[in-house]
Amino acid sequence: MQNFEAGSFDVIVIGAGHAGAEAALAAAGMGAKTLVLTINLDMIAFMPCNPSIGGPAKGIVVREIDALGGVMGRVIDKTHIQMRMLNTGKGPAVRALRAQADKVLYQAEMKRLMEEQDNLSIHQAMVEHLIVEDNEIKGVITQVGAIYRASTVIVTTGTFLRGEIIIGNLKYSSGPNNQQPSLKLADNLRDLGFDLVRFKTGTPPRVNSKTIDYSKTEIQPGDDVPRAFSYETSEFITDQLPCWLTYTNERTHQVIDENLHLSPMYSGMIKGTGPRYCPSIEDKVVRFNDKPRHQIFLEPEGRNTREVYVQGLSTSLPEHVQRKLLESIPGLEKAEMMRAGYAIEYDAMVPTQLWPTLETKKIHNLYTAGQINGTSGYEEAAGQGLMAGMNAAARALNKKEIILSRSDAYIGVLIDDLVTKGTNEPYRLLTSRAEYRLLLRHDNADLRLTEIGFNAGLISHERYERFIAKKNLIEEEIARLRKTIIKPNEETQNTILLKGGTELKDGIKGQDLLKRPEMTYDDIAKLSPSPIELTDEMKEQIEIQIKYEGYIVKALQQVEKLKKMEDKKIPDQIDYAAISGIATEAKQRLKEVRPLSIAQASRISGVNPADISILLVYIEQGRIAKISG
Amino acid sequence: MQNFEAGSFDVIVIGAGHAGAEAALAAAGMGAKTLVLTINLDMIAFMPCNPSIGGPAKGIVVREIDALGGVMGRVIDKTHIQMRMLNTGKGPAVRALRAQADKVLYQAEMKRLMEEQDNLSIHQAMVEHLIVEDNEIKGVITQVGAIYRASTVIVTTGTFLRGEIIIGNLKYSSGPNNQQPSLKLADNLRDLGFDLVRFKTGTPPRVNSKTIDYSKTEIQPGDDVPRAFSYETSEFITDQLPCWLTYTNERTHQVIDENLHLSPMYSGMIKGTGPRYCPSIEDKVVRFNDKPRHQIFLEPEGRNTREVYVQGLSTSLPEHVQRKLLESIPGLEKAEMMRAGYAIEYDAMVPTQLWPTLETKKIHNLYTAGQINGTSGYEEAAGQGLMAGMNAAARALNKKEIILSRSDAYIGVLIDDLVTKGTNEPYRLLTSRAEYRLLLRHDNADLRLTEIGFNAGLISHERYERFIAKKNLIEEEIARLRKTIIKPNEETQNTILLKGGTELKDGIKGQDLLKRPEMTYDDIAKLSPSPIELTDEMKEQIEIQIKYEGYIVKALQQVEKLKKMEDKKIPDQIDYAAISGIATEAKQRLKEVRPLSIAQASRISGVNPADISILLVYIEQGRIAKISG
Repeated sequence: MQNFEAGSFDVIVIGAGHAGAEAALAAAGMGAKTLVLTINLDMIAFMPCNPSIGGPAKGIVVREIDALGGVMGRVIDKTHIQMRMLNTGKGPAVRALRAQADKVLYQAEMKRLMEEQDNLSIHQAMVEHLIVEDNEIKGVITQVGAIYRASTVIVTTGTFLRGEIIIGNLKYSSGPNNQQPSLKLADNLRDLGFDLVRFKTGTPPRVNSKTIDYSKTEIQPGDDVPRAFSYETSEFITDQLPCWLTYTNERTHQVIDENLHLSPMYSGMIKGTGPRYCPSIEDKVVRFNDKPRHQIFLEPEGRNTREVYVQGLSTSLPEHVQRKLLESIPGLEKAEMMRAGYAIEYDAMVPTQLWPTLETKKIHNLYTAGQINGTSGYEEAAGQGLMAGMNAAARALNKKEIILSRSDAYIGVLIDDLVTKGTNEPYRLLTSRAEYRLLLRHDNADLRLTEIGFNAGLISHERYERFIAKKNLIEEEIARLRKTIIKPNEETQNTILLKGGTELKDGIKGQDLLKRPEMTYDDIAKLSPSPIELTDEMKEQIEIQIKYEGYIVKALQQVEKLKKMEDKKIPDQIDYAAISGIATEAKQRLKEVRPLSIAQASRISGVNPADISILLVYIEQGRIAKISG
Repeated sequence: MQNFEAGSFDVIVIGAGHAGAEAALAAAGMGAKTLVLTINLDMIAFMPCNPSIGGPAKGIVVREIDALGGVMGRVIDKTHIQMRMLNTGKGPAVRALRAQADKVLYQAEMKRLMEEQDNLSIHQAMVEHLIVEDNEIKGVITQVGAIYRASTVIVTTGTFLRGEIIIGNLKYSSGPNNQQPSLKLADNLRDLGFDLVRFKTGTPPRVNSKTIDYSKTEIQPGDDVPRAFSYETSEFITDQLPCWLTYTNERTHQVIDENLHLSPMYSGMIKGTGPRYCPSIEDKVVRFNDKPRHQIFLEPEGRNTREVYVQGLSTSLPEHVQRKLLESIPGLEKAEMMRAGYAIEYDAMVPTQLWPTLETKKIHNLYTAGQINGTSGYEEAAGQGLMAGMNAAARALNKKEIILSRSDAYIGVLIDDLVTKGTNEPYRLLTSRAEYRLLLRHDNADLRLTEIGFNAGLISHERYERFIAKKNLIEEEIARLRKTIIKPNEETQNTILLKGGTELKDGIKGQDLLKRPEMTYDDIAKLSPSPIELTDEMKEQIEIQIKYEGYIVKALQQVEKLKKMEDKKIPDQIDYAAISGIATEAKQRLKEVRPLSIAQASRISGVNPADISILLVYIEQGRIAKISG
């Protein structure tokens, strides 16, 4: 193979899955000359597992991606078959959108966006080699010998890196869904000195809708109210398809028990670690053997296909056992299996090898994003892709790096967790991972992040002005309600009594009346109308901000405290070995993670508060020594 | 790998490309319990090469498929982006429809049809082994050890069988467009004693529409008149996309000349034989080196994508040379290459190993169809798939086999050519291959074949009745025009003069007036209106049947003669070695092809008229001996 020069770019993205697509669009959108290289252009933004986007925490990530100028939200808004707001009965912190996707349309729409994006070139190619000189990335070489030079490179290989499909006792080299795996790049990363681990994920069988007896299942329709992930979406899909709910039972569990010796998870054939929060059905039955049944959701894979995803039945048991599992489930007794479930093992980076920008510490200007960093989930991948794309472009264009803090966004939590704590298993974002989840809400993603997206150049002026106007209206109305006194007249008392509250004795500030649990913004506005017209979105925001004010203020105070610790930067040249008093394990971990701030250092597992105190003093002394020296 | 029983079927189809899809739908449509096994369900009916269906001869095949009850016509009618009738200025024998496809939609629509088809199961799996007992197929075994039993099996592996992609001096194991190749099945076929040859095909680069300067190209719009392949289509797509025409030039040819040593075709790296009528650009430049330019059509790959197929630029030159070729072509100077062209080599059966039903002679109940039989083209594949599907189902259901003669259909010509003459290169259907091309027209495919499709059970009663009504109306109107005398009154003379004809001296039969070149059916109908309302389609049919009556009658007489020869069957047990007088080469060829009739024997290359005469006498004597014995 004779190599040849094929072009020069600011940013090269390897892979065009959910991470790669966001990375490429963000980098190009910021004005960096960007190239995407992917094995198969027909598989851009392919969903190898569940045909859905969003859900708890993940749905908020999609909102955050949108607020920053990413595309996942816009694309799913155009291509979903069902949209639901989860946890509407609970507090605003845990509300989240979840959409069922039309897989084929999602892919086509993402491909089109990429094709139309300025500064973005797309080329089908297998990258086999990274060009590195003096620990700095310089470009890549493809299978056909094409050399593409670049200032920065982002690797988003998903589950393709030395991918192996496992089903029963069969294991074969493959990407997801029988696609070609990426083999040489894995060797290359290893040769460059990266620590790679072996992770595993899995997927359930798919069945033909015409062979399902839906009368034995429960219908799960979408919301009646039109909803969207993106703040830019104005046209809503009203024609929604339902999902269906059924359950496993004793017979299902018996089939699993009887065939556990055939499971590659229990026979030892699967070496990689799987995702704890997305276990296979055999795992669920073994680990929770007192549970008499598990939920099984039947999710259509699109509007124009009869293929149905059997959510909850992820498995790597042999195909004939999978058929028996299906036969045991009400509604699926005669279901025809179109695709079998399988497990897939793949190489992933130990993510503590990354800076919070997702640049690798070892190779300058080389970034990684998505499943290669040890995460699971399309949304986690897209969030990382966006940040890696923004940072790679910022580096190439000599702009400032962009790091989201844990109080800015779930994406900040995700990346901080990865680079600070690492992960022993495919990492999934959960609301419980966020200490400030009341701040990181579905409803305020734009208020938190639009500014950052605008400054990066990913939010148009027009959209930004709309956003500022919205923000101002909300603030003005909150300010008005803080001072407006609502008099205890007949209308007021009637309104309150009607909602089941207690009558006013005296005049009350609008904000205080709204804080009463039974009162809504619309109740207050009836008694004291806003001088300006507000959208439903604004009203919801005003209501949440006023009702939860106490908690929000407390959380913000904590954030403020943390910020001080975040501001205490640790010099890059620090020699932890030279600091006496810090425990040996803490020294090792600090040396490995190389935290940027005292706050980040304090989050490293194995680093105790005592170690942090010593570190603080050491740095302070060094600073004093410098000043006085 | 432990094998397990996974089900029992009448017909199993391996592969779901253009041959596999038709085969499966036909078999299931006839009532056979059918299973399709394919490597990747997302690639059903994928178009790895040009995004178009139809064209000279091929377009007529699509009409024939539709008349027989196949689906290609219906699917492209629903998913095209442009439709054109070619050769409208020429005689009806060479008229043909050609559609540009929306590739993604075409795939999705075909998948949906298959998912919804009764009696049809679809399963994603790689078939690795054929179960054969006593030279009879009994089923297949997949990669995961699933055993599927079947009465009949159809192999439609396209270019996947031991596929290898070649570009420059790189050669790697792969299906088309970087999909997984099928390796073990190739070994298995060889082990079963089949003669396999190595064929080659190729595809051009794809470019991004946004980087094309269309001002330097010529627009090629679709037809204004709505048209469709299928006799069932009633809704027409009116919003069409144009294609664009540009040309290679001296610079392009110079680039090729300078880099010919890098071409795998000329370096000897490509061993397989390529399609003569679909040559690579390097082949065209070398073989026709006096031609100053070659046409390049820019064809959109769909409505919702910017990817553009560069028709005419098929090549396996190294990627950097491909870029130089693009740069040399007006409009493509800055075109961004999304995918590089490449050649692909694959295993194909020597098709003389097949009966005219497409059953293999060696293994009873095993059929092959499509590119594996040495053809090129989606339409050729689909036509074979349909016939193999019908015959496999007929066998499984104990029905009569279905063989189309050379005067019935282009599909008959195609299959007869393959099984009688074989092919040294990927076979492409051309109008010149048909001796009765005036009979095998675009306009009369339904009149030729609906009866056969109906008898097989693939045409609904409703459609058949509509067809019979149409046929009767045409015949009645022709009969009317045969006897109706048109008087030479003022209106008649004026009409004739207006069309530039010579005045009538006397009354004339309607049919004779219509035979005048300048007169159309509508002219005649104005002078002598039909008592019943006729559709445009019927009028066209009446016009063609009357105007070309002389030629058609002559052709039908030839067919009649041939039929006598087709009726002279050759006994299956005949021992050619025992017939003295037949030349040695002829004996060998006859033994290999095992022709079913004297007519088929006479078409075998290497068998001369003298050999046929001796064979005729020999068979006649045998028959007499039998009768008198």
